[in-house]
Amino acid sequence: MNDITVPHLTTASSGPFQLFERAILDNKVAIESWFRNAWRETQAPFYASVDLRNAGYKIAPVDTNLFPAGFNNLNQTFESLSIQAIQNAVEHLPESIDKILIIPENHTRNLFYLENVYCLKTLIEKAGFETRIGSLIDDLESPLTIDLPSSNNLTLEPITRQGNRIILNGFDADLILLNNDLATGKPEILEGIEQIVTPPASLGWSSRLKSNHFGYYQQVAQDLAGIIGIDSWFIDPMFRNCGEVDFMKRDGIDCLSKNIDALLTEIKAKYEQHDISCKPFVMVKADAGTYGMGVMTVYDVADITELNRKERTKMATTKEGQKVSKVIIQEGVYTHETWGSETTVAEPVVYMIDHQVVGGFYRVHEKRSSSQNLNAPGMRFEPLAFDDCCNAPDPNSDLDSHQNRFYTYGVIARLALLAAAREISSLN
Amino acid sequence: MNDITVPHLTTASSGPFQLFERAILDNKVAIESWFRNAWRETQAPFYASVDLRNAGYKIAPVDTNLFPAGFNNLNQTFESLSIQAIQNAVEHLPESIDKILIIPENHTRNLFYLENVYCLKTLIEKAGFETRIGSLIDDLESPLTIDLPSSNNLTLEPITRQGNRIILNGFDADLILLNNDLATGKPEILEGIEQIVTPPASLGWSSRLKSNHFGYYQQVAQDLAGIIGIDSWFIDPMFRNCGEVDFMKRDGIDCLSKNIDALLTEIKAKYEQHDISCKPFVMVKADAGTYGMGVMTVYDVADITELNRKERTKMATTKEGQKVSKVIIQEGVYTHETWGSETTVAEPVVYMIDHQVVGGFYRVHEKRSSSQNLNAPGMRFEPLAFDDCCNAPDPNSDLDSHQNRFYTYGVIARLALLAAAREISSLN
Repeated sequence: MNDITVPHLTTASSGPFQLFERAILDNKVAIESWFRNAWRETQAPFYASVDLRNAGYKIAPVDTNLFPAGFNNLNQTFESLSIQAIQNAVEHLPESIDKILIIPENHTRNLFYLENVYCLKTLIEKAGFETRIGSLIDDLESPLTIDLPSSNNLTLEPITRQGNRIILNGFDADLILLNNDLATGKPEILEGIEQIVTPPASLGWSSRLKSNHFGYYQQVAQDLAGIIGIDSWFIDPMFRNCGEVDFMKRDGIDCLSKNIDALLTEIKAKYEQHDISCKPFVMVKADAGTYGMGVMTVYDVADITELNRKERTKMATTKEGQKVSKVIIQEGVYTHETWGSETTVAEPVVYMIDHQVVGGFYRVHEKRSSSQNLNAPGMRFEPLAFDDCCNAPDPNSDLDSHQNRFYTYGVIARLALLAAAREISSLN
Repeated sequence: MNDITVPHLTTASSGPFQLFERAILDNKVAIESWFRNAWRETQAPFYASVDLRNAGYKIAPVDTNLFPAGFNNLNQTFESLSIQAIQNAVEHLPESIDKILIIPENHTRNLFYLENVYCLKTLIEKAGFETRIGSLIDDLESPLTIDLPSSNNLTLEPITRQGNRIILNGFDADLILLNNDLATGKPEILEGIEQIVTPPASLGWSSRLKSNHFGYYQQVAQDLAGIIGIDSWFIDPMFRNCGEVDFMKRDGIDCLSKNIDALLTEIKAKYEQHDISCKPFVMVKADAGTYGMGVMTVYDVADITELNRKERTKMATTKEGQKVSKVIIQEGVYTHETWGSETTVAEPVVYMIDHQVVGGFYRVHEKRSSSQNLNAPGMRFEPLAFDDCCNAPDPNSDLDSHQNRFYTYGVIARLALLAAAREISSLN
């Protein structure tokens, strides 16, 4: 085992706030039983990562990624857990699978991302599948081999369509695994193909709405909170959403202002109810979007109504130049975990394959505050792989012990996973 | 990771002998695909351990235990793998399970065994199930708490029957997990109960025959050998069996002699075919039996015909005084793995839960030779937990690397598991 410790939770001393964490640990059997039954009804996504924020008095998911990158950041000690979970995920598919085609993002210079693809490919191969990488890059005419900093290399191959199948030169896959969030829309080559595509291409960010996901999350959080007897707010970020917003033309800003104001008031009421002396804030994000662009921290309605041109331009576009239209306003959850110095904030990211937690890491940012989005340039990952896999709480240890902390993270992440599973199932 | 290394394989230098190991590594995808399909057809046992013998030129299972002890010997680093596998095993059951009752062996002074039960209980609890220990001990009238060397403790509780259910005081289990091989027969209290009992009580050693298991093993070994293009003998121990043998009265010794002679001749032919310069031997064991009693190494028919009274008495009884009647004569497989000194022989034991390998250890014996049964007083286990979980071969490493060696062990162990699964399925 490596000697990684857990970030320091700056509110750790504030007793009553952590009662919900105790409720989770004390009700482990009831929680696991509830999950078991839930997974009997709804198939989990192939994989997912969930960004969490731990304010000490509250833990909540803030983003659920169905096309997770970052497998290279997980603790390699638990590689076997990912291998086993991949085998389970495939076992749950309706067909017999031997050949898997991974379709990654179109990056060729983001070596960090490509290390993730290499890692994912290796895990799938170790799980016993023939695995190749097919690329959606438009002008890729022949295989492109990229050398990686890890001194491994990755070959991206052009995909072709033969009838209703996606074919790589000499490789007719049984399963197409998307690691591309299809932010620019579902490409024509993937339309109507007969191979299993997972996660479904219709879950790409071009059509998926965060507000839809968090609507499902609210339901599962309320169900779980009912079982363990806590206010669901302790694990659920409140949100509101607005239809069409055009930041450049200032269309829809009224709707936005009203909803921000209402949500700030609701948060304030919750803070008063639970005796929390923090300043309420909300996060304003693209409802369909990813990659941490177009995200804004708002303490006051004026923050939105008085945006300057530069700020409005930033909010108006997201990944690959997509225009933000629908907007989600989400309760801001402070990150009260710090790493090393008190000003280096950390937020946990939990990885799941099938319905199993396989590990996670802390996203750490030296130049951001506790109320800001940490998924931004300057973040670093590598040194903070979880020293545990989140499935083995220790009832004899402190709440603050990393095994128990990580188990709680695993529960909240799986709640978000279940919300995503219901989201996917509603498409069928 | 701890710094455990792999025992030294004394035949490691003899090139062509290890071609079958190369065939296994080179055909990983085909092997895993074959296993995947096999597990779609036949449900794996809840758990099992398999004793292997590695002669360098041949690897074979010599015992498949469906009521495995020794979970406390596994590398704790991979605890999460066992937890995940337990969750899968329960997921594969036809009913929704929350409460699990473990029925262990009737030992109260074998603290080593009881540490195993404690470990198993803890793993199942961590997997999210309420778990208690019910005992078949006849005169147990109230709960008995036993302090363990690990400074944990274990409470054995008397079981009672209510209608068609096994009940512990205040605990109506959904699943009864046997960790008792029922060598003295299926107890009346387990007859006709409506709860799921796994592994099935009819698989206890009172009714199970090794020859039946190895008959199934022969079939799966031949199937796999066909896929990877090797002589199945490289992974399959030949065997013969005799009906009623009474060592005390010398009844049936003729049948035994003839079969030993025939098997020794067959082994000799195989050794000549594959240019192996070892002396053939067979193991004579109780066909229904366990715990390494009543096991004899035989190089020559005279070894059996000239048994003295003491030796005959030893062969005539097995665990808890059961009389040996049916006998299996199995090809002896040398253990050519040594640990530390050249005379300390080691044999791998692989543990599986559901159809996943979750770890293993080396059984090491300082006072036994390479052709003897190592499951005997004087063996030691603890320091040799596998430093790997057997599911992640590395194609870029030597055959002799521990990852690859352990992967091969995992394949052979899973073959034995599949044989056991078919054995169980034939009961239904």
